[in-house]
Amino acid sequence: MTFDAFKTFDAQELEIQATTCLKPLVPETELVFGKHFTDHMITVEWSAESGWNKPHIKPYGKLELEPSSVVFHYGFECFEGMKAYKDTEGHIRLFRPEMNMDRLNKSSARLGMPTFDPEELVKVITEFLRIEDRWIPSKRGYSLYLRPTIIGTQTALGVRAPDTALLFVIASPVGPYFSTGFTAIRLLATTDYVRSWPHGTGDCKVGGNYAPCVKPQSIAAEKGYQQNLWLFGEDDEVTEAGTMNFFMLWENFDTGRKELITPALNGLILPGVTRDSILSLVKSWEAEIGIFVREGKITMADILKAVEEKRMIEMFGAGTACIVSPIKCINYKGKDIEIPLGKTKNDSEAGPLTKRINDTILDIQYGVVKHPFSPSPSEILRDLKSYQVYNWPNIKMIELLSEAFSFISAPITKEIIKKELRIFWRSRTNNVRTTAVAAMRASQLESTLSLVLNSDPVLDIIIENLNEQQEATVLQQEESVEMTKQDC
Amino acid sequence: MTFDAFKTFDAQELEIQATTCLKPLVPETELVFGKHFTDHMITVEWSAESGWNKPHIKPYGKLELEPSSVVFHYGFECFEGMKAYKDTEGHIRLFRPEMNMDRLNKSSARLGMPTFDPEELVKVITEFLRIEDRWIPSKRGYSLYLRPTIIGTQTALGVRAPDTALLFVIASPVGPYFSTGFTAIRLLATTDYVRSWPHGTGDCKVGGNYAPCVKPQSIAAEKGYQQNLWLFGEDDEVTEAGTMNFFMLWENFDTGRKELITPALNGLILPGVTRDSILSLVKSWEAEIGIFVREGKITMADILKAVEEKRMIEMFGAGTACIVSPIKCINYKGKDIEIPLGKTKNDSEAGPLTKRINDTILDIQYGVVKHPFSPSPSEILRDLKSYQVYNWPNIKMIELLSEAFSFISAPITKEIIKKELRIFWRSRTNNVRTTAVAAMRASQLESTLSLVLNSDPVLDIIIENLNEQQEATVLQQEESVEMTKQDC
Repeated sequence: MTFDAFKTFDAQELEIQATTCLKPLVPETELVFGKHFTDHMITVEWSAESGWNKPHIKPYGKLELEPSSVVFHYGFECFEGMKAYKDTEGHIRLFRPEMNMDRLNKSSARLGMPTFDPEELVKVITEFLRIEDRWIPSKRGYSLYLRPTIIGTQTALGVRAPDTALLFVIASPVGPYFSTGFTAIRLLATTDYVRSWPHGTGDCKVGGNYAPCVKPQSIAAEKGYQQNLWLFGEDDEVTEAGTMNFFMLWENFDTGRKELITPALNGLILPGVTRDSILSLVKSWEAEIGIFVREGKITMADILKAVEEKRMIEMFGAGTACIVSPIKCINYKGKDIEIPLGKTKNDSEAGPLTKRINDTILDIQYGVVKHPFSPSPSEILRDLKSYQVYNWPNIKMIELLSEAFSFISAPITKEIIKKELRIFWRSRTNNVRTTAVAAMRASQLESTLSLVLNSDPVLDIIIENLNEQQEATVLQQEESVEMTKQDC
Repeated sequence: MTFDAFKTFDAQELEIQATTCLKPLVPETELVFGKHFTDHMITVEWSAESGWNKPHIKPYGKLELEPSSVVFHYGFECFEGMKAYKDTEGHIRLFRPEMNMDRLNKSSARLGMPTFDPEELVKVITEFLRIEDRWIPSKRGYSLYLRPTIIGTQTALGVRAPDTALLFVIASPVGPYFSTGFTAIRLLATTDYVRSWPHGTGDCKVGGNYAPCVKPQSIAAEKGYQQNLWLFGEDDEVTEAGTMNFFMLWENFDTGRKELITPALNGLILPGVTRDSILSLVKSWEAEIGIFVREGKITMADILKAVEEKRMIEMFGAGTACIVSPIKCINYKGKDIEIPLGKTKNDSEAGPLTKRINDTILDIQYGVVKHPFSPSPSEILRDLKSYQVYNWPNIKMIELLSEAFSFISAPITKEIIKKELRIFWRSRTNNVRTTAVAAMRASQLESTLSLVLNSDPVLDIIIENLNEQQEATVLQQEESVEMTKQDC
């Protein structure tokens, strides 16, 4: 654990301000990675003086920052890429979110910026996803890409650990990386540019690792290669493929056994969540498929020799965006090395192991297969405390909340639903100024919820509970209006 | 030249919007590096579609950027540090600004961002300095620090050369680095962290080079060392000292001659403007002082041996902030190596060469010594074309402009003054709607200028010229108002 348990924000203190203007959803066919964003964003401010502020969910909008903010000058920025999925039952699922949280903390600390309790951000993200439910595509391969980011916002130009920072999370609906079967990519092995170095930041997800890669990427593109194959050192050790981790399935020279190998986490390699998941999955298949898993050094000489001796079987990159991306060619020192794909079908450029990995991870992400990597909604909610949800400012809120509440139409525990309704109702009444409006809204809410929850066996209990609460709170609210009048 | 001459912005198209609220000046004793900023800033927008937009000078204020802007995620940011000085005659001077412009272009291109014609930005900065004249401290050692910056503003999260970017320049008045004589610093030679590596970005001024250095810097500070001494490779080659270039004066082992040596520009080293100036100056002194200049490799073994054999004479870091910063100690592998300072006076921790370099550069910067590194205002203005200065929105403008015009109270050519006044007057009348207001303002302007220009022998000619111009332009302006009415 890299975070300081005594210095975190608290998901329980979450403040929500709903947008007054919902954006139209983007049709699935028009989804482009990271182009369209949802209605809201998460923000949490931090200062050296007072620590983390309360987390906020508020309308997606521009950040207003002094031009002297250090994020613009010294690269004080780190981020994560993760996805929320909708499973076959309509539940929202995350894929190993705790790994992203841990890595974000590690990156932030590496740049002298604050850390937080990973669980608290997962809780806030869960609440955020409930609100943004309509943005999470339900089709297999589609998902809501989440981008947690921490930036240094200190407005004085000294190069030091920033005295203020901002954590934010934005979300963008995305389609499948390969929409019509796999397309294998061609890589340009790059020696004129080096992505990372021992004792550098190659093992952290910090902004400064990325911009320097676009020039070599353009050079690769001009030559007809989709990505760079990043090398390191005098023996041209393979490190990463574009922004992905590198994997190959080959017959080991020494042991003769089939081996899935990926570069070890030696400080040059980003510890990918997909990378870790692949290692774990293929290890669990070892007895069944006879493929061993190894993390170790891979040089270009190894690749050349393996291809020549026909020991190379499959090769792929791995990352959150694509899961796996088969590699069919590497240009090294001006020569194209053709990589066998081991493909079995003509319509797809992926070998059997590459494809199995992809399908299995998809199955886990979309809840087809039960797996600890992808907790079910009830598991996500298990530890949630009751948030104080308030500050819903306008008549859009019933629409928004009822939409968000579609999430709890699933067979999760009675207790959670009741608690959520209680919170919901409390939040609603907080901003209602007259009994008449309160009654009207309560009635609207009831019918919306009836509709949403009509498949649920506990519906009657909920509605009854709601009615009781409504009477009680309307009464309370009238009293509080009276009290406010007296106060003024 | 790294910029594309066909793709630049044009200083002639500069648009100026003056602030409606001048900030109070910061007392000299309260100046902290990069903390307080002037009234205005320069901005120039760029897009892949339409190239550079017009340059703008506008009130200093927050940047409003989408949270998806790539500057927050992928380190698309590069900057410069340079200073404007006021010489003994009250003229504004810059120190080798073309070097900063070239380096900014190099850094921007390295990150796949746009380049510009260096001269055009120098012109806009010159105009900016005229407006911000009151912010440029006049005391020796004090200056206005300028921070030109380019950031990628593309709002889609794909990692590629940004399709939009923003160039901005902000300015902060700064005091001397050493206010009471030199204080030599202690360095921690750092092997657990590496600042830069071959085929990386160590030779560019990009944001990603900086944030990763604050953690090692904190470690150094905790141990009582002001900066890190950055090393590279198995033989612990010296690269930089904190954010400064590294220099040492020693007796060369082989030649026995006194030598000022600094690491060569091998891709790991930032090509500092101060570094280059020091090399050039000390080379010019060679015959006089018998110190030779060399760019080459320096290892920790060299330093240890030189200190042991009493061949080490002086050591210092060099950069825009401090000019030179003497070094008195390096901690290497847990042991403090004491560096002789070669100091001559007890009250200052700098050796004779270190001090001479510092004093000479200060003399050049403040115009005490004439040198091509620091062009006089007339040289700066020589190539200036007549800007279309307009869009002054309010009554603050006379105050502002007359203040800016103190710049031309110096004995620069009549032609330039006249031209400037013509531009000035034209700019003034462009926004004046009635003859009465125009006359009033002209009168105010005249008296302000009289006051400002009262030491100038060409004053009468100017005032006369101004009066003529005033009549002519008031007349023109009345006609144009009439014409506008007819047009409507």
